[in-house]
Amino acid sequence: MKIAVVGATGEVGRTMIRVLEERGVRPETIRFFASPRSAGTELEFAGRRVAVEELTREWVPAGTFDYVIMSAGSELSKRFAPVAASRGAVVIDNSSCWRMDPEKLLVVPEINGDLLAGYRGIVANPNCSTIQMVLGLYKVHERFGLKTVVVSTYQAVSGAGRRGIDELLEQERGGSVCEKFAAPIHRNVVPQIDAFLDNGFTKEEMKMVDEPRKILRDGSIMCWPTTVRVPVLYGHSEAVFAETREPFGTIEDLLEVMREQEHVTVSDAPVVTPAVDAAGTDTTFVSRVRSFDDRHFLQWNVADNVRVGAATNAVRILLRHAALNGVR
Amino acid sequence: MKIAVVGATGEVGRTMIRVLEERGVRPETIRFFASPRSAGTELEFAGRRVAVEELTREWVPAGTFDYVIMSAGSELSKRFAPVAASRGAVVIDNSSCWRMDPEKLLVVPEINGDLLAGYRGIVANPNCSTIQMVLGLYKVHERFGLKTVVVSTYQAVSGAGRRGIDELLEQERGGSVCEKFAAPIHRNVVPQIDAFLDNGFTKEEMKMVDEPRKILRDGSIMCWPTTVRVPVLYGHSEAVFAETREPFGTIEDLLEVMREQEHVTVSDAPVVTPAVDAAGTDTTFVSRVRSFDDRHFLQWNVADNVRVGAATNAVRILLRHAALNGVR
Repeated sequence: MKIAVVGATGEVGRTMIRVLEERGVRPETIRFFASPRSAGTELEFAGRRVAVEELTREWVPAGTFDYVIMSAGSELSKRFAPVAASRGAVVIDNSSCWRMDPEKLLVVPEINGDLLAGYRGIVANPNCSTIQMVLGLYKVHERFGLKTVVVSTYQAVSGAGRRGIDELLEQERGGSVCEKFAAPIHRNVVPQIDAFLDNGFTKEEMKMVDEPRKILRDGSIMCWPTTVRVPVLYGHSEAVFAETREPFGTIEDLLEVMREQEHVTVSDAPVVTPAVDAAGTDTTFVSRVRSFDDRHFLQWNVADNVRVGAATNAVRILLRHAALNGVR
Repeated sequence: MKIAVVGATGEVGRTMIRVLEERGVRPETIRFFASPRSAGTELEFAGRRVAVEELTREWVPAGTFDYVIMSAGSELSKRFAPVAASRGAVVIDNSSCWRMDPEKLLVVPEINGDLLAGYRGIVANPNCSTIQMVLGLYKVHERFGLKTVVVSTYQAVSGAGRRGIDELLEQERGGSVCEKFAAPIHRNVVPQIDAFLDNGFTKEEMKMVDEPRKILRDGSIMCWPTTVRVPVLYGHSEAVFAETREPFGTIEDLLEVMREQEHVTVSDAPVVTPAVDAAGTDTTFVSRVRSFDDRHFLQWNVADNVRVGAATNAVRILLRHAALNGVR
């Protein structure tokens, strides 16, 4: 297997490399690409040092790579992903630019990984907040049908990359620089993630409206999101309310259905938090499932945004695609 | 006017005293009471020093006080509020213990302050999260009817009193003591406020279910809350979703209705945050009002929990009661 990681020195890129290692992926070729600023640095992979190369249009001659995992922002993805795909690579792209393209897949392998069989081209990795939400809700949707979802997020600063983390840490030390977030994030919460749109929602919120419909293959699901940045380093949390089409019975019935989901732990612990429980893991934790009737419920959903919400999902796409298509 | 403040040395008590001062209240008598531990300390009021007295059963002989404002916890309120009321004082009580008693008032003056006319006895001050939420929704309810509310809170550590604040500050300095909150709160969020009940909701959440029904005088409103502690010092935020009984027209129509609410600022600013905008003010800020149709909307609601959510509402009750009943 021949793999390229583009954006290898960023928060998500580094974690992709770590997750590949952890999964025991030992490609015959692995190359790391990044911006000229980061080129020349070395990253470790499975015990050896790999030099980071500068990304140029010539980086990917035909047949060079089976998989290109990209986490380098929408602009670079727009320019480079089609080139890599046209030269034969399956591109797993973490940016938002291809997600809603009807000709590209948008995949959470545990939900719609079947689509990867025989597929070539660009596979979009969903938004971090979307991934953990649909993982927590998919089995319920499959069984009872999701009609309406109301979700409020508590999103970690690492969602804004290394500079997001640095901005919080700097402010904790008394610094006043406020560039990555629309307001100070230390001892504060900021109800804006990504840019505002004319309808008053942010782009991040519209991702949570649109992407679940595509992943869950049901355009009728109405999602009402509020996405909020909180001073947490790693781990997004979500307060999720859902209305089902069919009655789900008791909370125990509901829990039983939720427990069928691979890579989700339905926790009996009363208090599951991003910093203590989710950070550094590949598990989506669902807890505090409760209701007043049998058609609506609440759920507290916590996962590591850089892993589950980005790097791990990308690697899971790669491994699922490889398994389904015999790439070794 | 003769006023007693019970629990005068706590976060809310101190703020009550400050708000009384700011409103120009200059009672002929003002006395401060607290636990034996705090008795003997002095607090400033309108330029003079007032000694804090120990609370005993003998503290309030008949006719001593027109108003007793209490913020000393449910146990003390249960013991002392009825005594004070039986001796002729109107008791404005910040604890949760009398709120749902059908014989006691639960008042947000801007909404149901009319009930204070001719009333004597105990007036309960609602839960902090409830007050700012109903202030942000009341005019909409009055005009279009609230059917369902889904609310996720981002609650400041000061909601747990001085010790809540100290626990965050200590953890910021590297301390590991974790007593007030169920998990570390520094660089984390904790989905538990108050104790858990058998139905899986916390007491704080059930307050947000029950209290709005009483304040808005509509037992049919269904509220689905998730209450979460965040590392913010002052200012609770709420991501509120509401479904109305009648269509509300456009967002502009909705904003016009919301703007009629006294003490609420409907902000056009895209980003309103607790630390920057709400802390230290007596205003409830409503922002980010948005929708996809004319029966459901989202709102970001921010207010100073110690002021709007406790002290200021209590003082507003006092002033409204005094005005309606000619107490001077």
